[in-house]
Amino acid sequence: MHSLQEYQEIVANHFSQIKNNKEPKGLYEPIDYILSLGGKRIRPVLTLMASEIFDTDYKEALNAATAVEVFHNFSLIHDDIMDDAPLRRGKETVHEKWDLNTGILSGDAMLILAYQYFENYEPQIFQKLAKIFSKTALEVCEGQQYDVDFESRDNVTINEYLKMIEYKTAVLVGAAMKMGAIVAKTSEENANLIYDFGLNLGIAFQLQDDYLDAFGDPKTFGKQVGGDIIENKKTYLYLKAIDFGNSEQKEQLLHLFSIQPVDNADKIESVKKIFIETKSAQETQNAIKLYTEKAFETLEKLQIESSKKGVLKTFGENLMNRNV
Amino acid sequence: MHSLQEYQEIVANHFSQIKNNKEPKGLYEPIDYILSLGGKRIRPVLTLMASEIFDTDYKEALNAATAVEVFHNFSLIHDDIMDDAPLRRGKETVHEKWDLNTGILSGDAMLILAYQYFENYEPQIFQKLAKIFSKTALEVCEGQQYDVDFESRDNVTINEYLKMIEYKTAVLVGAAMKMGAIVAKTSEENANLIYDFGLNLGIAFQLQDDYLDAFGDPKTFGKQVGGDIIENKKTYLYLKAIDFGNSEQKEQLLHLFSIQPVDNADKIESVKKIFIETKSAQETQNAIKLYTEKAFETLEKLQIESSKKGVLKTFGENLMNRNV
Repeated sequence: MHSLQEYQEIVANHFSQIKNNKEPKGLYEPIDYILSLGGKRIRPVLTLMASEIFDTDYKEALNAATAVEVFHNFSLIHDDIMDDAPLRRGKETVHEKWDLNTGILSGDAMLILAYQYFENYEPQIFQKLAKIFSKTALEVCEGQQYDVDFESRDNVTINEYLKMIEYKTAVLVGAAMKMGAIVAKTSEENANLIYDFGLNLGIAFQLQDDYLDAFGDPKTFGKQVGGDIIENKKTYLYLKAIDFGNSEQKEQLLHLFSIQPVDNADKIESVKKIFIETKSAQETQNAIKLYTEKAFETLEKLQIESSKKGVLKTFGENLMNRNV
Repeated sequence: MHSLQEYQEIVANHFSQIKNNKEPKGLYEPIDYILSLGGKRIRPVLTLMASEIFDTDYKEALNAATAVEVFHNFSLIHDDIMDDAPLRRGKETVHEKWDLNTGILSGDAMLILAYQYFENYEPQIFQKLAKIFSKTALEVCEGQQYDVDFESRDNVTINEYLKMIEYKTAVLVGAAMKMGAIVAKTSEENANLIYDFGLNLGIAFQLQDDYLDAFGDPKTFGKQVGGDIIENKKTYLYLKAIDFGNSEQKEQLLHLFSIQPVDNADKIESVKKIFIETKSAQETQNAIKLYTEKAFETLEKLQIESSKKGVLKTFGENLMNRNV
């Protein structure tokens, strides 16, 4: 097994060599552009790690890992259109740099390209990979739709919210790992356990993202702290505060989430105060811990050497401490 | 073998039973909507016909046929966004009836659903179907991009135009037939020949669409006659007229294609006159005949009973006489 950093270098190296550089340029240049923007490449790294966890050279998993990252970037292009986002990883989004039609069409092409990376595997493996991929991709679409739906609903439950982040974010983390397991031809039990590990870690990661969006250190958190509050996003923190708050706190929070002041500093401070006072902040940290522990528990059941379990545990700990 | 009408009924019946009816409704209702709008269902019919041409019950090809039609409707949703089209088959387009985001996301889900229909086949067949499907789907995206590019170019060649309609329209007709052949496990030679049959027939069909758009009978041609001329579309008729015309005719045509009068009747008549006088109209009919004959020639090479060749020939003739 390699170190996390080594896997990240392998993936970065691999993607620096992928240049579609094909005609028509209007279709392929935006694809090369978004793939060149980098990022942590966590999903493809997990695919490579999973294959080596199950005693198979990471090189055999490179095509599956590429498919996962290409799919992830497809979903970013289309999500950025839907969210009208101007920036992605600090650079112009595809629909901003080019236009709406380019964003749609280049995104579509990426979804198809992702499937093509599986063609390098023999039929049995190909079908298994394509199956988990299609199931996951559809769930990601469903998660995105739930996210859109939640914007105009004021009765979203915690369970609905958890399902949304599971579909929108966590299933792809689980699937990335399961694909490594499939390439390695390990037992179905192992493949499902590593999926559950990734899934629960993915949920913990997204909940932590909600938490850090309000309480993160502006120096180390990649995004604007308070962004969710400015956008009146119904995150785990918000839903739990509504759940736990007394009628006064609830009323105040509902009011704060109905306004869009020019200067948001006061609003952010007031909302964070409610998150703390209602113990929603504490409860969110508990949930993060719960899902992280759930992930680590599935590790115990995996039939692999304990040193390899250690690698996955270290990865999980680094991820949750955001050292990745 | 069944009659063309019977295949159309089988497909119509099959699609009337497909109701995703799943959650979230915001994602799946638009899918059920566009699939319920009907249309001639030529592509899935061809998949079923191809399987029976190669002695395999059409029922075995139903999933592949469904994938082709679902993909085709995915491309219609996204194309309609890009063309800002208000109507599709006389009804509101998805992005009009819902909104832009719905059009993008439901379209994405349909592309994934199309792949899932292949999961009903064994791994070897699954991989073959998914491979031709991905290749074709990517070409359709490329064709759409060329079409977009051509709008802002004034030096499009006839060969570039033919490549564009081949990718945007014809490859899916060829692939629809090849998928029937793959399900029937016929020889690779037969599968490739039936692909070429569909491909050339698809090119002929699209050229005929260009021709009928200007010279069709308003009573039988489904779309507004003169629509391409109103939109200044560089069709085969236009490109050949520029190619064949003397400097005066060329200048007049370039002028007519630079204006957007309120009443288009005069413009349409003037352009049609140039199409006829430059012999572009005649040349377009020649090209339609050429590609139709090319399609029929590949039939000769197919290793099947001659009565079955007759069925395909009749289909081709009906299609080119627009009795389908």
